[in-house]
Amino acid sequence: MTTDASTAAAVERAIEQRRERVNEAIPEELPIVHPERLYDASRYLLDAGGKRLRPTMLLLAAEALADVEPMSEDYRSFPALDGSRVDLMTAAVGIETIQTFTLIHDDIMDDDPLRRGVPSVHKEYGLATGILAGDTLYSKAFEQMLESGAKPDHSVRALSELATTCTKICEGQSLDIDFETREEVTPEEYLEMVELKTAVLYASSAAIPAILVGADDEVDALYEYGRDVGRAFQIQDDLLDLTTPSEKLGKQRGSDLVENKQTIITLHARQQGVDIESLVDADSEAEVTEAEIDEAVAELEAAGSIEYARETAHEFIASGKDHLQELPDNEARETLAGIADYLIEREY
Amino acid sequence: MTTDASTAAAVERAIEQRRERVNEAIPEELPIVHPERLYDASRYLLDAGGKRLRPTMLLLAAEALADVEPMSEDYRSFPALDGSRVDLMTAAVGIETIQTFTLIHDDIMDDDPLRRGVPSVHKEYGLATGILAGDTLYSKAFEQMLESGAKPDHSVRALSELATTCTKICEGQSLDIDFETREEVTPEEYLEMVELKTAVLYASSAAIPAILVGADDEVDALYEYGRDVGRAFQIQDDLLDLTTPSEKLGKQRGSDLVENKQTIITLHARQQGVDIESLVDADSEAEVTEAEIDEAVAELEAAGSIEYARETAHEFIASGKDHLQELPDNEARETLAGIADYLIEREY
Repeated sequence: MTTDASTAAAVERAIEQRRERVNEAIPEELPIVHPERLYDASRYLLDAGGKRLRPTMLLLAAEALADVEPMSEDYRSFPALDGSRVDLMTAAVGIETIQTFTLIHDDIMDDDPLRRGVPSVHKEYGLATGILAGDTLYSKAFEQMLESGAKPDHSVRALSELATTCTKICEGQSLDIDFETREEVTPEEYLEMVELKTAVLYASSAAIPAILVGADDEVDALYEYGRDVGRAFQIQDDLLDLTTPSEKLGKQRGSDLVENKQTIITLHARQQGVDIESLVDADSEAEVTEAEIDEAVAELEAAGSIEYARETAHEFIASGKDHLQELPDNEARETLAGIADYLIEREY
Repeated sequence: MTTDASTAAAVERAIEQRRERVNEAIPEELPIVHPERLYDASRYLLDAGGKRLRPTMLLLAAEALADVEPMSEDYRSFPALDGSRVDLMTAAVGIETIQTFTLIHDDIMDDDPLRRGVPSVHKEYGLATGILAGDTLYSKAFEQMLESGAKPDHSVRALSELATTCTKICEGQSLDIDFETREEVTPEEYLEMVELKTAVLYASSAAIPAILVGADDEVDALYEYGRDVGRAFQIQDDLLDLTTPSEKLGKQRGSDLVENKQTIITLHARQQGVDIESLVDADSEAEVTEAEIDEAVAELEAAGSIEYARETAHEFIASGKDHLQELPDNEARETLAGIADYLIEREY
């Protein structure tokens, strides 16, 4: 079919439409109840914004599977393949809730003071309430995922997928922490970390609607689509840190180099013999100059590391889009393909 | 029936037998895999010991419901009421896993250096891995609870019970934190906190086996039994802090008074006009004398607060045992009654 669903503008509009629905559902699924301070803290980061990419992916995957006109169906009563109705918005919010829990705890682990332009939860509410807000979102996500009204065997499978995903996210975060103090990390090890820390939640976001509506044959393809897109997304993040002007990024360009953070780009460059540690001498973002970062980027380019990362991201995106061929040919599927391209074309 | 299943010695033996089985199952359900450091940290507190009271309660409730000879059945293949087989050990370990996650995160929130006689997890592994070990146990518990092989609708209900319980534990911990900086807490508010923070996990431990084996009619009674026992357990902990010699307690007697921690005893005493803040002048356990604590306890006794706490605990235990009347009359039921008594008769 030939719609314009995969153009950047159409993709942005599709994300925006679903984000609005997700934003409406969040206070319904996570009302601020007694004890208020805990629920204020739990909602704080959710209310601070976010693209809602993962729940959007979940909703679009459901639309593609049910082969319905995009946005024509009520996500609170979405047609499963056997004709029964499933509340997919509970699952979509559940995914965003899990993502938010991981951000809150990650910010504590890294002691990051800011997130989405506001103080991180533990800075605003203190360490104890920060930990507790994350823990509350964790169980709330499981509660939400259980409220879809899907058939019990579908719910069990979705819950199992969610629980396994959470375990993998913890494993990925643990590897990421280990890498900070390890000299020799290979690009392959880095990709394993990215898969666990970032990609599996995208994979679940795409696969869980198939599980819940009973589209058993499409579960694996959607999982692989999400996994590929998630891996590409993280690599693109690593690239943007080097190539997008600071004003657009909303933070210092090259901050990963300043902090000696390992990325697929630096790991590749090290394998090419580049002395990564001395690429940028400055020890803080305040000290570093644009010229110093330009020079570092030029060296990474000369080593072929920027190109290597770009190619790797593009390969994942191509692979992810291939998996979509298993789905019915409709506008939602085209938007999912468009999202894949969009994620590596974005400049910030 | 007239066995000796409810004597203290028999109860201790029953707990010991099931603890051994649970201890065998923990490494099977939570093997140390890649990344090892994360799983080492996740197993660290589980391996440091513990009475395993909650999983024991779960297993005994199952034995009572299925009306089998205690310990005659394999918990890995336990008879559900419809004749199918359920692996109840996965659920029992899941409960202990959740309990361990809460202890690890609580120790971070309170910055407690010791737990079960060893350094707390965040002291041994650092803050980031401490948070992450708790997060890993959290999802692992859900994975374990999903592996029982119970019918999907039973699994969904058990998962829902577990998720709701985790949310309540967070709410209880949040109230407990709030109380530290609040002047006027009533005994009723304190009991609400205890119910959420402590009692609901006992309630779930008792009710979940009924859900999993399909004993729908007994779910509520077992829930109430566990809830009552859990509330009594916490009050008994508060009492022991005042009445058990320091050598037996393994920590300074009266430490709650030194730290100005609110308990049902001090909250009752305040309502009787006792000036709680000046009961103990010492600001640290190093400064306090046994004589000072003796005097404080005498004042609490004179106010009727010790007796009030004892009576409240006994009322909960009596109520909890009443609920057991709904179960088949067998040895496992008698042991559950014995556990209730045991928990408030224990001296440390």
